[in-house]
Amino acid sequence: MSEKENIMNIDTVSLDDENSAIIIIDQTLLPAETKTIRLTKQKQIWDAIYTLQVRGAPAIGVTAGFGLYLAAKEIGAKAATYDEFYAEFVKAKDYLDSSRPTAVNLSWALNQMDKVCRANSGKSIPELVEALHREAVRIQEEDIWACHKLGEYGLSLVHPGDGLLTHCNAGKLAATRYGMATAPMYLGQEKGYNFRVYCDETRPVLQGARLTAKELMDSGIDTTVICDNMSAALMKQGKVNAVFVGCDRVAANGDTANKIGTSVVATVANYYHVPMYIMAPTSTIDMNTKTGDEINIEQRPGEEVTEMWYKERMAPEGVKVFNPAFDVTDHELITAIVTEYGIAYPPYTESLKKIMEIKAEAMKKD
Amino acid sequence: MSEKENIMNIDTVSLDDENSAIIIIDQTLLPAETKTIRLTKQKQIWDAIYTLQVRGAPAIGVTAGFGLYLAAKEIGAKAATYDEFYAEFVKAKDYLDSSRPTAVNLSWALNQMDKVCRANSGKSIPELVEALHREAVRIQEEDIWACHKLGEYGLSLVHPGDGLLTHCNAGKLAATRYGMATAPMYLGQEKGYNFRVYCDETRPVLQGARLTAKELMDSGIDTTVICDNMSAALMKQGKVNAVFVGCDRVAANGDTANKIGTSVVATVANYYHVPMYIMAPTSTIDMNTKTGDEINIEQRPGEEVTEMWYKERMAPEGVKVFNPAFDVTDHELITAIVTEYGIAYPPYTESLKKIMEIKAEAMKKD
Repeated sequence: MSEKENIMNIDTVSLDDENSAIIIIDQTLLPAETKTIRLTKQKQIWDAIYTLQVRGAPAIGVTAGFGLYLAAKEIGAKAATYDEFYAEFVKAKDYLDSSRPTAVNLSWALNQMDKVCRANSGKSIPELVEALHREAVRIQEEDIWACHKLGEYGLSLVHPGDGLLTHCNAGKLAATRYGMATAPMYLGQEKGYNFRVYCDETRPVLQGARLTAKELMDSGIDTTVICDNMSAALMKQGKVNAVFVGCDRVAANGDTANKIGTSVVATVANYYHVPMYIMAPTSTIDMNTKTGDEINIEQRPGEEVTEMWYKERMAPEGVKVFNPAFDVTDHELITAIVTEYGIAYPPYTESLKKIMEIKAEAMKKD
Repeated sequence: MSEKENIMNIDTVSLDDENSAIIIIDQTLLPAETKTIRLTKQKQIWDAIYTLQVRGAPAIGVTAGFGLYLAAKEIGAKAATYDEFYAEFVKAKDYLDSSRPTAVNLSWALNQMDKVCRANSGKSIPELVEALHREAVRIQEEDIWACHKLGEYGLSLVHPGDGLLTHCNAGKLAATRYGMATAPMYLGQEKGYNFRVYCDETRPVLQGARLTAKELMDSGIDTTVICDNMSAALMKQGKVNAVFVGCDRVAANGDTANKIGTSVVATVANYYHVPMYIMAPTSTIDMNTKTGDEINIEQRPGEEVTEMWYKERMAPEGVKVFNPAFDVTDHELITAIVTEYGIAYPPYTESLKKIMEIKAEAMKKD
């Protein structure tokens, strides 16, 4: 592998130098091919999110922020008044918001952009567009900072030489740098912690085998791929000291929506007394969602299960398929929820509220 | 699909009319192609077991019985004395026994053949070979009878309209007829029970998606494929009333070795209070193995996980893989072990002993 192909040297999502396109790593081609693509049209951006060329809650948020900025530039070139501008801006926002339903970061990032837009309604259109540019960049910088903090807090929960299990990809490829579940692994690697990391392959789309294993290997970490159904065999052998996973939406009571299979890992970890940590930037915490029962779970096409990448079908023609993209892990199966403002322990209704208060306080000081 | 392609109309394993070859459905080609192949050489039979062209503990046992009979025929054509015959017979037996390590049926069937061989040491070689033929056929007939009994006992544990989950293939393709986990499903189907059956796809080799879904669909049962990591999402929705799985070896305390992932399903079922039933012909119960810790677990090549059927790798080059073929489900996660001589409930050290006594009594009467 050349340095150029090392995924750790390439931004997951970035704006090009002219601020005219989003550049993403096309994650559907990994691990065979490391290729970046340019997105300029709104339809391209929507498709990139829907088809998982870019995925992972924070990376989707950052992409949506940049995407709405690109839309604003285009709208701004034609609009004569703020009202004209804002009418089109909201359409673009709603369009991007419809690309995936479960991750809160998508609408969170779009709402941040909307706030900035409305706060700058008195400015000239070029000034307004520039304010949106700054906000999109800020969303990305906040993601990098937050992931680094997640890594610091996460690292405090484990020890050198530990075996760590992760599910799906809550890695650098799901964010901008460090990732969420991977942040303590990368920070530990810098400190010579010699973790052994096990990646659930994560059916049906195999984000664990294709993406997480790739970025961990590229960073030099001892990496082992397992099928999703092998976690119990590993934990029974005492090989796993902690589980770190990301999340797409955390409810106020700690119930956590994340990639399908996360609640299976959590149940098995619970049985074998292995701590289960949710790595949650506060942008994924949704205090307006009381419990996991209120979270809308995206159902994806059955062909992801029965046909993906196969020359021939791997299930009989006409069979029914149940293919939810996410599941909800009961808060009682979660040992702690790690955020960039500290670690929340049960009862989460109280500890998450406290975290959000600390965040609000910090935002005031900014 | 033509009637000829309906898997339910074709024997999983049989002897041809001249008793000169074993005919099996090549299960590696399913579900795309339904094709039978003839096995005559010992190497072919060994390979067919090792490469999973025939798999499932009872089907392996039946194949091994037929295989050793074919070896005996060949040996008998050359051997002048019983001692000459037996020396070669034991070599053939040990060779077949080395094809897979975990399933007890393989060695059980071979030992049955060995007992018959030794019991007939005084007979002429042609008589001896004929006795081995009868024993191989009896092993298959006993499998069919046992699976039907499993189905009757299993059916007594569920209700019409129930949602049933199964893992891997402990179906007709893993046995001769009815299967183990599928036996109550097929008997229920005959009675109009309208079960909804969920098949774990069962990575890495996908026996659930490829084999179980195929045979259930061919029999007309309402069949849904799920990925192995979706069981918690299903059970949380209350869609599963019972789990039926087969087994490769049951220890005297009820610990059960079965396809990798079974103990994950059992842990999730336990958490959601869904009954977990092991469908165990007594040939899979090994009273000489005290606990699951003593069961030798076959490790299979990593490429099954990272490459199988794929045009390109689905995990980065050089990544490590953990690929045990089986796991051991703790007896405390098992609601009942269903055998052809009745249903064993905890504590299994007592109930399994009782079952084996009932069997010994029944064998005496035969």
